Amino acid sequence: MTAGHSISAAEMMAMENALLLAGQGVRGANPLVGAVILDDDGAMVASGAHLGAGTDHAEIAALKNAAQQGINPSGCTMVVTLEPCNHTGRTGPCTQAIAGTGIRRVVYAAADANPAAAGGAAWLAGQGIDVVGGLLAEAAEELNRRWGNAIQEQRPFVTVKVAQSLDSQSAAADGSSQWITGPHARADGHAIRARVDAVLVGTGTVLADNPQLTARALDGADAPRQPLRVAMGFRNVPEGAAIRGEGFVHLRTHDPHAALNELHARGVRHVLVEGGPQLAGVFLMADLVDELFTYIAPMLLGAGIPAFQRLGVATLADAHVWRLDPDGAAPLTQLGDDVRLHFKPIAPPPAHPAKGS
Amino acid sequence: MTAGHSISAAEMMAMENALLLAGQGVRGANPLVGAVILDDDGAMVASGAHLGAGTDHAEIAALKNAAQQGINPSGCTMVVTLEPCNHTGRTGPCTQAIAGTGIRRVVYAAADANPAAAGGAAWLAGQGIDVVGGLLAEAAEELNRRWGNAIQEQRPFVTVKVAQSLDSQSAAADGSSQWITGPHARADGHAIRARVDAVLVGTGTVLADNPQLTARALDGADAPRQPLRVAMGFRNVPEGAAIRGEGFVHLRTHDPHAALNELHARGVRHVLVEGGPQLAGVFLMADLVDELFTYIAPMLLGAGIPAFQRLGVATLADAHVWRLDPDGAAPLTQLGDDVRLHFKPIAPPPAHPAKGS
Repeated sequence: MTAGHSISAAEMMAMENALLLAGQGVRGANPLVGAVILDDDGAMVASGAHLGAGTDHAEIAALKNAAQQGINPSGCTMVVTLEPCNHTGRTGPCTQAIAGTGIRRVVYAAADANPAAAGGAAWLAGQGIDVVGGLLAEAAEELNRRWGNAIQEQRPFVTVKVAQSLDSQSAAADGSSQWITGPHARADGHAIRARVDAVLVGTGTVLADNPQLTARALDGADAPRQPLRVAMGFRNVPEGAAIRGEGFVHLRTHDPHAALNELHARGVRHVLVEGGPQLAGVFLMADLVDELFTYIAPMLLGAGIPAFQRLGVATLADAHVWRLDPDGAAPLTQLGDDVRLHFKPIAPPPAHPAKGS
Repeated sequence: MTAGHSISAAEMMAMENALLLAGQGVRGANPLVGAVILDDDGAMVASGAHLGAGTDHAEIAALKNAAQQGINPSGCTMVVTLEPCNHTGRTGPCTQAIAGTGIRRVVYAAADANPAAAGGAAWLAGQGIDVVGGLLAEAAEELNRRWGNAIQEQRPFVTVKVAQSLDSQSAAADGSSQWITGPHARADGHAIRARVDAVLVGTGTVLADNPQLTARALDGADAPRQPLRVAMGFRNVPEGAAIRGEGFVHLRTHDPHAALNELHARGVRHVLVEGGPQLAGVFLMADLVDELFTYIAPMLLGAGIPAFQRLGVATLADAHVWRLDPDGAAPLTQLGDDVRLHFKPIAPPPAHPAKGS
């Protein structure tokens, strides 16, 4: 880490691209990471992102992307949003893979906070590779902040998904709810199921809707990787319920902390809370929601079953305030006729000047 | 209209651009129109859109845009989403302006449905200009369909604006509502006020919030053009109310049809219904809403004052169904921390396949 500490414009641009790539990855047991390979002239020739636990790290994905194009990365620069790992987990150490290709220079953003994986930068420098860290580190850390918190707290990362009408009803007054969102939004919901370790619903929802909770393709075929299917609450789950079978878990509690502890002990690192409205409220009230997807169908139901319940807000100052996720993954997405909003939580609401309308 | 009826790829692309430009215009007493000027090689050299009643028609805006660039349009092709008008309204006839510049060819989309303004194509052809109509006419007509309906029904075009939290509350349980949306969303709301002929609220909102209803810039300065400020309902408006003064109208009715008749008689061609929630519901229930802007603040209020009320929906099949406006103007817009969704109404909800979640 002695030579070439100055950052080129091409490297800066590549890091911004790597952050965008990282944001498009999926939350898993590992952080979101993106990587870009630059040739001698600073042109981006390959890229990759980490797409979930057990899949290639971003650096490996980028190297494979180069190989697919017949590009020899020898002499190239690797730009990556996280210090390359130095240990063998479910995949081998990235440091060795990088050094083995003849990569000349590595520019990374955030240092690896995982003690088992750290030391990559020093190891690479020891191999004579030019290593620079800290470029856009803050953005890279923010990308994984809530994720890091969850790991530190030894609980799963919590994603909540809510599908609602424009007036925030999850079902009409007579309970009819089957078709609030369209096929594009539902396919997106199944894609989220396929990338988490567990899908959680209340026992009330199990009794009312008898959901399968499996991750399925549009044609109904099961996704290759299936999450645990978890019912939470004290009511019994009927013998014939669709949720039952291998991978079914019943958590007899109303305490979200206890539920997350139990899931963590079962190896769950990412849980999707799908409903109903009261269960979402329980996790929101406990400030245990790391990510919120709201699907809005373009219809007004007027009355019905509110999509968010039991939030315990009496005045505007107590509102739960979110922000549209600025980290690469689309904060606003049109899905067929519906809209998906992707939020992260923030602390108390920003002070706005008086409206005086 | 005899020669050159075939459409070039450049003209097709230009018409698509003209439609996009049209959609970015503002609703006024005239339809949305966009125009593009192509040179001999089919390159787009100038463009324009109609930006509201009393301003230049799209063709004139495009010709001025060419002049600003020092471009002589003689021999060029004008591509425009509506048949050029042939009459003198608040502006002169576009046909004469076009013929006067030496434009060689005019390609338009929709025929002019206004009898007073029609005949432009025939007049231009009589001047020896090559004229082709009907290119992407359906898209151009859809752009102005609700507008045309309102004109035929002799009522103002109705835009409804609703600002709400993610859980569709317009205020928290204690009534605190001043800061639901941020400054960007509020500035956008004032920009809409500046382009309509009247802003309408219920007398209940006047009594509760004492709004000014003027169109103002971010610094509080009044916009040059101000809408009428209209209170609707039977309750008296206090002498000292901020809404009072020149341009204030009180409509003592609860009937939205009667209110629109009265406004039309006063020359109002575009009214913005701002609230409260019950008034919006009255217009929605009567199927009198041509355009809906929903501003969503990224917060959960849990309980409070629902932003949509009195919609009279008992089951999903009765839902009021909308669609994100596909006509050029941004259907999804991030405004600071908030989101704006831009909808048009459609008929009954599309049938979705069963969810089977």
